[in-house]
Amino acid sequence: INTSVIQNGVHGNGVHHVNIKGALYPTKSKSRRQRWEVKPSEMANNTLNPIRAIVDGMKLTPNPDKPMIALSIGDPTVFGNLPTDGAVLQAMKDAIDSQKYNGYAPSVGYLQSRQAVANFYSCPEAPLEAEDVILTSGCSQAIDLAISVLCNPGDNILVPCPGFSLYKTLAVSMGIEVRLYNLLPEKSWEVDLQHMESLIDEKTSCLIVTNPSNPCGSVFNKKHLQEILKVASRHCVPILADEIYCNMVRCSSPSLASLSSDVPILSCGGLAKRWLVPGWRMGWILIHDRNDIFGTEIRQGLVKLSQRILGACSIVQGALERILNNTPQSFYNNTIGFLKSNSEICFSELSSVPGLNPVMPSGAMYIMVGIDMDHFPDFKNDVDFTEQLVTEQSVFCLPASVRRHHLSSHC
Amino acid sequence: INTSVIQNGVHGNGVHHVNIKGALYPTKSKSRRQRWEVKPSEMANNTLNPIRAIVDGMKLTPNPDKPMIALSIGDPTVFGNLPTDGAVLQAMKDAIDSQKYNGYAPSVGYLQSRQAVANFYSCPEAPLEAEDVILTSGCSQAIDLAISVLCNPGDNILVPCPGFSLYKTLAVSMGIEVRLYNLLPEKSWEVDLQHMESLIDEKTSCLIVTNPSNPCGSVFNKKHLQEILKVASRHCVPILADEIYCNMVRCSSPSLASLSSDVPILSCGGLAKRWLVPGWRMGWILIHDRNDIFGTEIRQGLVKLSQRILGACSIVQGALERILNNTPQSFYNNTIGFLKSNSEICFSELSSVPGLNPVMPSGAMYIMVGIDMDHFPDFKNDVDFTEQLVTEQSVFCLPASVRRHHLSSHC
Repeated sequence: INTSVIQNGVHGNGVHHVNIKGALYPTKSKSRRQRWEVKPSEMANNTLNPIRAIVDGMKLTPNPDKPMIALSIGDPTVFGNLPTDGAVLQAMKDAIDSQKYNGYAPSVGYLQSRQAVANFYSCPEAPLEAEDVILTSGCSQAIDLAISVLCNPGDNILVPCPGFSLYKTLAVSMGIEVRLYNLLPEKSWEVDLQHMESLIDEKTSCLIVTNPSNPCGSVFNKKHLQEILKVASRHCVPILADEIYCNMVRCSSPSLASLSSDVPILSCGGLAKRWLVPGWRMGWILIHDRNDIFGTEIRQGLVKLSQRILGACSIVQGALERILNNTPQSFYNNTIGFLKSNSEICFSELSSVPGLNPVMPSGAMYIMVGIDMDHFPDFKNDVDFTEQLVTEQSVFCLPASVRRHHLSSHC
Repeated sequence: INTSVIQNGVHGNGVHHVNIKGALYPTKSKSRRQRWEVKPSEMANNTLNPIRAIVDGMKLTPNPDKPMIALSIGDPTVFGNLPTDGAVLQAMKDAIDSQKYNGYAPSVGYLQSRQAVANFYSCPEAPLEAEDVILTSGCSQAIDLAISVLCNPGDNILVPCPGFSLYKTLAVSMGIEVRLYNLLPEKSWEVDLQHMESLIDEKTSCLIVTNPSNPCGSVFNKKHLQEILKVASRHCVPILADEIYCNMVRCSSPSLASLSSDVPILSCGGLAKRWLVPGWRMGWILIHDRNDIFGTEIRQGLVKLSQRILGACSIVQGALERILNNTPQSFYNNTIGFLKSNSEICFSELSSVPGLNPVMPSGAMYIMVGIDMDHFPDFKNDVDFTEQLVTEQSVFCLPASVRRHHLSSHC
């Protein structure tokens, strides 16, 4: 073996060793650590989950005489009353039996699975090819990759308030500033466009739009989506569209990309909500860029970032085409009907309580409830209210503390 | 609804709006972007895959008369001659049928699945509890989390050369310096301990040890592992042990943690190699910290980082206990026997070629082959040699360009 060549390997630190046995290496003992001191990185310390920060500090002692009803998280599978479709399960078992999907998939996903997603979401106004689809480990990784490719430390991103907490968790851990733009409850949680626009500056590298909304349960109409696009277009800010709840609506709602003539959009989605399998971690990014503003650079950036940990489980990827093509329309209709019925019951019952002001949702699976604290003088705030609701009734809603005096509840 | 309270939400940028309708917001138009310019982030640009950088630049035109034999990547499933066990597939199908594993798992994994991994790897010298196990989306995410929790930008990590390229891909993307320590081919790829020690300074926050080795196929003996631990102990540097190939050996090899009395170790592993299902993305970190040097802080840091994208597919997690407990010993033995037989054939055949110097592997599924370039005057270097091997014989080995004039080949 030509070991002499190996010995001249790259060291990466400029230190070259002279001789392989009994070597003379420059030592650096003066600066070496003398005792153990292992601390978590700044990134770990800065990875904050606002929901955990609130919930972990709460006193949650359910009433022992009543079964716990946890309405605090967006997991449709918890109560077993919203099972996924048999076709979805069969597609998975077939993928396992085929033994074709045990090896590494490409980091952006199997071409055939990307093609299936492209076919499923393509429309004349916003056509998609396989190359426009990046498969990810859940919608969370889709959002992670989208923020990671668009934003540098020191940039800022615009995030809805009330909004899904993950955007902040990810951005802050990467040194990206989060600017919250208000949603207006009296306008069914539409964006306060003037407020949003006022927050944009030259360091704004991404506008996040969540539609349908987690946690508001609201759905933007076409006109409002066009208004949002106008703001993004005026300031040349690309959009991250979190559309994981797309099609889970009780009204018509186009995708943001289908209305965009210039604004480039990374639309994040996945199987989690509509197919009721959030644990499977099957997500995707749809790249909409008809004016070639992202160009090859952003696409290449997404591919490179996807190589850090690779993507979704190959079995779910292998099943994806059949999941998308074989799930019957009746399944989707039933889910929406069930959520509609539940939200109507929630709205009606909550409306009858003086001091509670629910906002009727039209999509996703949440309802936001305003609390007029004057009607509840015994409670300090929304957290106290929520704690007492657990103590007395064993019902757990998420206190919407960032947007004070609201509760967010799973329908 | 008590909208006035909502309007006072946190904006995060110090800009307070005055009034919700026809609002007066401070404008920042002077600093706004006037035209589209969307560039990938520094992190995306710095996410480099050295293998892709080499392979994408190669001319790979197989001989049309011979079927392509791709020996370039560590995927045991490519040729279909190493299928996983039926018990593994059955465990997956049972997990699907149970419909118990469709919802969100905790970000660090189901407790029961973590317990199963702890039981599987626990030994008297290095006991493990469920809380010492973090489940991840493949061993790649395990390595990502381990580096992320231990290292800040500006730190350095020590990485074996020849070594697995992902360490560098991840570290460089995070602004962490990579220092390569040499492995010695003439000593069966043992670590050049003096060289390794010479690279340590006070900014060294992690020592990565890959055993069994990718791509060398070597396995360290107990004495050598103890010597490595002594270096880490002397300089108070924690170890990331990449042990994804543990137990895939033709000789005895203890885990690093079972020999450590003080050095804290994050051992990264997963189902990928031993169970022959790399696409399933089921990995884990085993936290070994008997002297409480990591303490609760590093553990909490790992939990926090795991919340960024959540972890492994819930179906694979649900199947994990039965995969670990029900896979018959004969399956493991057969895999090792098959790899041993293949590596003996490779070694014997390659040894008979003048100028090729294979190093007999004792674990994993690779063989490194030294090329004495003097015997091959028609070839410029290892990349040229590899290209011609594809052109003439349709056999693709990975040129080990970092460690010049070696090929790495899958057994």
